Amino acid sequence: MLTRIDHVGIACRDLEKSIGFYEATFGLVVAGREENAAQGVREAMLRVADAPAGTSYVQLLEPLGPDTPVGRFLARRGEGIHHVGYGVDDIQAALDSIGATGVRLIDARPRHGSMGASIAFLHPADVGGVLTELVQAPGPG
Amino acid sequence: MLTRIDHVGIACRDLEKSIGFYEATFGLVVAGREENAAQGVREAMLRVADAPAGTSYVQLLEPLGPDTPVGRFLARRGEGIHHVGYGVDDIQAALDSIGATGVRLIDARPRHGSMGASIAFLHPADVGGVLTELVQAPGPG
Repeated sequence: MLTRIDHVGIACRDLEKSIGFYEATFGLVVAGREENAAQGVREAMLRVADAPAGTSYVQLLEPLGPDTPVGRFLARRGEGIHHVGYGVDDIQAALDSIGATGVRLIDARPRHGSMGASIAFLHPADVGGVLTELVQAPGPG
Repeated sequence: MLTRIDHVGIACRDLEKSIGFYEATFGLVVAGREENAAQGVREAMLRVADAPAGTSYVQLLEPLGPDTPVGRFLARRGEGIHHVGYGVDDIQAALDSIGATGVRLIDARPRHGSMGASIAFLHPADVGGVLTELVQAPGPG
C-alpha cells in the first residue's frame, strides 16, 4: 500500500532561516513553497531524492499564528518532527482500507496538499502517537 | 549529500504489538530485528519501499529499560516519532562536511547501526529540534 516515505514534516519558527539551514548544511534544494491558510502554515518542500516511486522531501512548516495546529505543536513541544507522510498510489482506496481496520481518519476524503498532491491525515492516537499522512502525487493528466 | 529518507524512527512501548499494527494496517513487512544493547533498544526495520538509492524503512524502537534514550523519550513525550535517518554514500565525508558548518556531532565517527549499516547522529539542538541520523548502507564487499 505504501510506496515510499514521501516526506518528513518539520515544525519550525522561522521558515526562511530553516530553509537556509537545510540548504547550507545538507545541500537540499527547494522544490516548492506554499501558504496553506486552511492548515494555518507557510511551508517549503525541499527535495531529498528522486526515485521511480516518487520524490522524497523534507517539508518545513511555519505556523501562520499560535492558534493553529503547528503553532500549538511548537508551544507544546518546540521545534522538531511534526509528522510523516507516506506515498500511496490510490489514496481513497488506502483510506478505505485503513479505516476498515479501526484507525480513525482525520480526513475521510482526500484534500489538497503540497505541490498538487491529494493528502489525508490519520489520527495519531490510533497510529502509536505518530501523526501520519497519506500522499497521492498529482497524476500526469 | 543526502540520497534518500532511509527511515523514520518511532518509539513504542511494545515492539511486537507495534509490528503487528504496521503489518496489519499498512501491509509493511519486517526486514530485520535486532537488539542493540549499546543504544538500549530492541528494534525492527519494516520495509516501506525499494529504490535504486536504497530501501526506506519504518524503524520501531522499544527501550530495554526506562534509563535509556528511548525510555526517557517515552517518559517525556509518549509514543511517537523519535528521529529521522537520511541515506548518504560516504558517511565520514558527510560528517566532516556537516561538522564544518558548526553542527555538533553526537558521533564524530560512524558506528554500527541496524542491518549492518554505518550510522551517526547529529545533535538535535543544532538541527532545529530534529534528532537526525546519517546512514551509509553496508557495501557489497
